[in-house]
Amino acid sequence: MAQRQDIRLEELALAARNHGMPLEALRLPVTPIGLHYLLTHYDIPIVDADKWSLEIAGLVERPQRLSLADILELPAEELTVTMECAGNGRARMAPRPFSQPWLEEAIGTARWTGTPLIRLLERAGLRKGAVEVVFTGLDRGVEHGRELAYERSLGLDQVLEGDVLLAWAINGQPLPPQHGFPLRLLVPGWYGMASVKWLTKITVTDRPFVGHQQAYAYRVRLSEDEDGEALTRMLPRALMIPPGIPDFPARARTLPAGPCALEGRAWSGFGPIGRVEVSADGGGSWEPAELEADVGSAYAWCRWRHAFEAEPGVAVLLCRAEDATGRSQPLEPVWNLGGYANNAVQRVAVTVVRS
Amino acid sequence: MAQRQDIRLEELALAARNHGMPLEALRLPVTPIGLHYLLTHYDIPIVDADKWSLEIAGLVERPQRLSLADILELPAEELTVTMECAGNGRARMAPRPFSQPWLEEAIGTARWTGTPLIRLLERAGLRKGAVEVVFTGLDRGVEHGRELAYERSLGLDQVLEGDVLLAWAINGQPLPPQHGFPLRLLVPGWYGMASVKWLTKITVTDRPFVGHQQAYAYRVRLSEDEDGEALTRMLPRALMIPPGIPDFPARARTLPAGPCALEGRAWSGFGPIGRVEVSADGGGSWEPAELEADVGSAYAWCRWRHAFEAEPGVAVLLCRAEDATGRSQPLEPVWNLGGYANNAVQRVAVTVVRS
Repeated sequence: MAQRQDIRLEELALAARNHGMPLEALRLPVTPIGLHYLLTHYDIPIVDADKWSLEIAGLVERPQRLSLADILELPAEELTVTMECAGNGRARMAPRPFSQPWLEEAIGTARWTGTPLIRLLERAGLRKGAVEVVFTGLDRGVEHGRELAYERSLGLDQVLEGDVLLAWAINGQPLPPQHGFPLRLLVPGWYGMASVKWLTKITVTDRPFVGHQQAYAYRVRLSEDEDGEALTRMLPRALMIPPGIPDFPARARTLPAGPCALEGRAWSGFGPIGRVEVSADGGGSWEPAELEADVGSAYAWCRWRHAFEAEPGVAVLLCRAEDATGRSQPLEPVWNLGGYANNAVQRVAVTVVRS
Repeated sequence: MAQRQDIRLEELALAARNHGMPLEALRLPVTPIGLHYLLTHYDIPIVDADKWSLEIAGLVERPQRLSLADILELPAEELTVTMECAGNGRARMAPRPFSQPWLEEAIGTARWTGTPLIRLLERAGLRKGAVEVVFTGLDRGVEHGRELAYERSLGLDQVLEGDVLLAWAINGQPLPPQHGFPLRLLVPGWYGMASVKWLTKITVTDRPFVGHQQAYAYRVRLSEDEDGEALTRMLPRALMIPPGIPDFPARARTLPAGPCALEGRAWSGFGPIGRVEVSADGGGSWEPAELEADVGSAYAWCRWRHAFEAEPGVAVLLCRAEDATGRSQPLEPVWNLGGYANNAVQRVAVTVVRS
């Protein structure tokens, strides 16, 4: 555990700004504001809602410019959604790709309120030849020497079938600046990069989008030469609340011997969780955890529990999920250039002491 | 800027849990929930308010046990308070002390609502011989092999004169779990370690408290042999909003040439800010910044502005504050064992490009 790694000051600067969800918050079905993971690529725009508008342009019959008041008048839906950063687990890869150095905390579940994207597009009217929809945020930065806005696209299939929301509230409150005030995209089941924050423009296009965050970043590949595969849905993952209590600052954990009720949550962007298994001996043997039946939302994590008998010594606890499509978690990280989609099983070491 | 440092995986785990305030949030006088810095020593307790109570014990005439409802009925005050972690700036020290590796973002300003501590102590009645008041949180951890609760004390002088609050709301909302729900201490002007979260017990004592967080941690000293000096009030500090836009992931900044309106905020726990100075040439020359007169609260940061002409090339921008007591900021970090109270001036490098 006293493993040392070279880290850049720049990675530290990212880690100080961005934050994961402390795993004890897995106790809560909905993550409070401020505990939900947060990744900001550039600077957080501080937006004056009175001056803000959303433009809908491109291949639409009736181009639109809507104020926040206009959008708040549209039919609203609420969705409880588990969101994970595509870079979650990056810092467990070796060599560690240079970006936000997440361990496994880049997750959260929130109640998002907004208007279905499809309603807005119906109102604007898709024109023939429409293939993708590009979403532009107000956040601007520099990539490879060029200034650009954060932009991502979705294919028309995902737009039409994916329960995609234009969200203006989180957990019943207006979006705070860091979550995209006044309006953000919300793509349930997908890694967070798809859910463009500080939305300012929606453009319907007749061709695939080739912007930086789509064609270069957020692709699984082994070298710069490959195009790689675009990241979309979240791979399955189970996480546990680390049992016992930590020390400071190393966060090494101590647990009294005896019965221990382990619990955590599991999710997948590909379908419902089929099973969660727990190992209390470092992966030597696995036992099924009990899954809570009612998860409340098709897009939210489900709770699992598992009782084990903690015996004095060091225990290494693991958990892993498998979803209804048969996708599961590898025991070790699968490396790629950007450090994406590492859903290797969580390992929690605890020192069990006689109580 | 490509400086590399050895970092422990444990430091990364801390940095992923805890977070600073992204400095663009210096634009806002009050920091939104989720952007205020947060340091949690152990795990965040998830508290059931119905089962929670506050005990007042020790050298008091009438020992008390109060429910949250009891406390919400007491007279309430609101205070806008700038809070900084005592470890802010730690990661700029060399060698870097092992703890949460803050750069300079461990700050925030919030509107806290609660009942003055002094009212509660009057109600309980201080007995003769009272010297200190010990505050116990529900958060538990291990230090030097011993399980303990997070505990800190205040001397009676600070308790009587310091506007100390028992806060149950932040920015008009109930405390979220991470800020100490349902009740926390708030010691205006002091580093954050004094403001005990998840408060469960207040004990009036006849002697100085010698618990871990008082007698061992949070002391400025050069070696384990020294007792050192206890940390109390925040040293002065000015911070600027880094101008221009960043790249990702290195966050190197680009600014168009021409007039640039720099702005930021400054504070000190020892008194009002007397002046802020800005250097646009790496510290070679300094110019006074304009201070906003009305800061609204004696305990909140004040805003400063400074116009400078950005010329093509690399500019290194610095800012520094001096308070009314004459305390100011050093140009370089002053090392100590715990990595505390490093208020060395902020340096922001920007590449100025022809616009």
